Amino acid sequence: MNELLYVLDTKNSVPLYKQLYLFIRNDIRASIIANNQKLPSKRNLSKFLGISQNTVQTAYNQLLEEGYIISIERKGYYVSQLEDIIKYETKIFTDSKIKINELPVKYDFSINSVDQSSFPYLIWRKLFKETINESDETLLQAVGFQGDENLRESIAYYLHQSRGVNCSATQIIISSGTEFLIQFIIQLLGKNVVYGLENPGYDKLRHVLKMNNSKIIPLSVDSEGISLNDVKINDINVLCITPSHQFPTGTIMPISRRIQLINWANNSDDRYIIEDDYDSEFKYSGKPIPSLQGLDNNGKVIYLGSFSKSLAPSIRISYMVLPQSLLQSCYINLSFMLCSVPLINQKMLNRFIVEGYFERHLNKMRTIYRRKYDILIQSILELNQDIEIFGADAGLHILLKVNNGMTENELVDIARKNGIEVYGLKSYYIDQYLNAEYGYILIGYANLSETEISRGISLLGSIWFKES
Amino acid sequence: MNELLYVLDTKNSVPLYKQLYLFIRNDIRASIIANNQKLPSKRNLSKFLGISQNTVQTAYNQLLEEGYIISIERKGYYVSQLEDIIKYETKIFTDSKIKINELPVKYDFSINSVDQSSFPYLIWRKLFKETINESDETLLQAVGFQGDENLRESIAYYLHQSRGVNCSATQIIISSGTEFLIQFIIQLLGKNVVYGLENPGYDKLRHVLKMNNSKIIPLSVDSEGISLNDVKINDINVLCITPSHQFPTGTIMPISRRIQLINWANNSDDRYIIEDDYDSEFKYSGKPIPSLQGLDNNGKVIYLGSFSKSLAPSIRISYMVLPQSLLQSCYINLSFMLCSVPLINQKMLNRFIVEGYFERHLNKMRTIYRRKYDILIQSILELNQDIEIFGADAGLHILLKVNNGMTENELVDIARKNGIEVYGLKSYYIDQYLNAEYGYILIGYANLSETEISRGISLLGSIWFKES
Repeated sequence: MNELLYVLDTKNSVPLYKQLYLFIRNDIRASIIANNQKLPSKRNLSKFLGISQNTVQTAYNQLLEEGYIISIERKGYYVSQLEDIIKYETKIFTDSKIKINELPVKYDFSINSVDQSSFPYLIWRKLFKETINESDETLLQAVGFQGDENLRESIAYYLHQSRGVNCSATQIIISSGTEFLIQFIIQLLGKNVVYGLENPGYDKLRHVLKMNNSKIIPLSVDSEGISLNDVKINDINVLCITPSHQFPTGTIMPISRRIQLINWANNSDDRYIIEDDYDSEFKYSGKPIPSLQGLDNNGKVIYLGSFSKSLAPSIRISYMVLPQSLLQSCYINLSFMLCSVPLINQKMLNRFIVEGYFERHLNKMRTIYRRKYDILIQSILELNQDIEIFGADAGLHILLKVNNGMTENELVDIARKNGIEVYGLKSYYIDQYLNAEYGYILIGYANLSETEISRGISLLGSIWFKES
Repeated sequence: MNELLYVLDTKNSVPLYKQLYLFIRNDIRASIIANNQKLPSKRNLSKFLGISQNTVQTAYNQLLEEGYIISIERKGYYVSQLEDIIKYETKIFTDSKIKINELPVKYDFSINSVDQSSFPYLIWRKLFKETINESDETLLQAVGFQGDENLRESIAYYLHQSRGVNCSATQIIISSGTEFLIQFIIQLLGKNVVYGLENPGYDKLRHVLKMNNSKIIPLSVDSEGISLNDVKINDINVLCITPSHQFPTGTIMPISRRIQLINWANNSDDRYIIEDDYDSEFKYSGKPIPSLQGLDNNGKVIYLGSFSKSLAPSIRISYMVLPQSLLQSCYINLSFMLCSVPLINQKMLNRFIVEGYFERHLNKMRTIYRRKYDILIQSILELNQDIEIFGADAGLHILLKVNNGMTENELVDIARKNGIEVYGLKSYYIDQYLNAEYGYILIGYANLSETEISRGISLLGSIWFKES
């Protein structure tokens, strides 16, 4: 063998020598390069691949050290006897559930993204530089379960100002995702709890509850959110709701129903409401409605929030506000854990809030998203087709009912075949087989430009309502 | 009232206006400033406190907006009627279990810290700057359950090189703490599992298992780690061990016993070993012993690792290597969750490894810790007192048995009274009442300087072995 034709990627963060090493190692393992075979000389291979001799030398050294190849003086490098190598299974496990989409996606109406181009990169860089400070003795230490106290102070202040949440920093627990917080709540409330879930509703909540073998009762959602008229309501201890912007239907729960729910909770000691205020930052018309937590005088509401929508999903900072009555139990049962968010990230976010950047960012994003929202609605109306729009003027997605005779799957599939990703409602139902025959579609618009939104919708119109 | 004497802290990251605002708000709430009282003019207060009028204005504006004060034209600012203010409970909840130590700690022999002065601050800054890149479209998106693929590649490579772990990136799951990974494992293995735990052993593991109502059998630890001669061994499905550096006794499990354990696991389909390799990076003498995972050909070992010791506890990046047989179940049951580590942190760490900084850092730290370890041992020997030293030449802590007739609590208390923190062994026992009468003490030394170590030990000697 004189040549090893590998395509090395100079733009990859993996250094060239390591790429080369990995290629050769894999080929040796897969017996593509056979036992005792001679490898090309460093000089030849470096010429052939257009890389430095040094790079080849480093790759060969690595292979030598691990015993994949041997060096024979004045002769060169040879592949070892394969038996001498600890071989291991490198079979790639692929998730059969993941759909492989070969078509390039032109317009992704994802409901889980934010406007990436508006992220405050410059400020983030500045804050990191200011935060990573050798003289800060706390910086490398793990943080206790609840999270950094300053950040909790800031969150308490922010929540009070913008969401009417009444709490002190001691009631706040910071973690790296709503999933984890829900798991904490399950552990706090114990085994004998029956959870009432919005149907359709937030799928991750359902998954975490099921994973923990919690009892679940689905409650249907009307145009004002979850209804108390459901007969099953009295079997439930803990209601899980998204009153600010119901996920996924997008309705906002009016104040009258909020008071009803608070009264329901007040009727029994073991009743609680989990208020997931996940998408509360963006409301484009009317007065802001304060959180349910703000209406609660009896410690009945557990409030959940996150920075996934207001900053970015990759930030991984969520928090909950516990009522005083649950704090003691929280300390006793959970405080052995450490806060899962790296301290430096918490300190950066705290500066971001304290120094006023967060408020400015939210204001900026509100303007950007409102414009996108308006364009989205206008584009749909301009199609002049039988499409119903659900949800309030809020949040980062809307719900459509497309009345063209297609099922949800058909609508999603035909869109995908034309390079557009839209999302069905089905998977957010606890009983997933229901409603699939109707054409409900979720449309997120945060990370598409205004032009992309109007072009994408116009294309969807022509696909879904083709003249036949 | 003409003066508001508040001490504002210019070095605090909380801006002055906010400090002032909080002071006044709290005083209004606590009725220290009464209803309808006039506040000092901006000019007077700014002079009095030595801050700008602008700062006072901003604080007053905030109070105005929230309704705490009102502005009366040509008269000034007045505190509102208190009844109009939404008051909320700011009672501070304090954890009664936290001991308040009024004495300043001169020497903290903490077993949970690292050498803070050696953290690669400069490189970390550089890597952040390189990583936060507007053109990286993935940066703001949440990462799937397993974590960033490049980082998993790097970890797989590192583990293979330095710990003899045989795995591919697809087997790795990244999370923000061992606690979370253990919780995943509990969910993967199901309800009917009996866990065998080292006694004494890692307390967080025990807490997580108890929190999940898992069945636990304690197994005693001898000078070679956990023993298979225990009669209870056959009731156990899953052994949880720390063979590289037993926590907390510090022993290293010899290869013979490792093979025994692997054979035990191979004897039944439902048996697994959880190998927590938490402190494997630092071994100061003898040859490195490869991980148990590397000896396992049948997919019996779940390997746990973290960067808490090798970088810093606040990094919050841990990982596990699952055997192929558990991957499918992991995908089905857990893949709805998102990875809890922020992507930017994962990307930074990946660069840190790929660009060779991690290896260099480890080498540097090995030298630093070895010197500290030697000085620690030497200082103890120089006391020339009846102190037994346990544990191998490895890791970042040692175990002492102090034979001066004091109990563990007495040893810890008298040290604390003299400004030295040392840590008892008791809390790492499952049956905590046992062994407390013996004087077992844990000594961590990572974050003390060489001088501090020798001075601290010398002081401990004079306290514990006072001529009476």
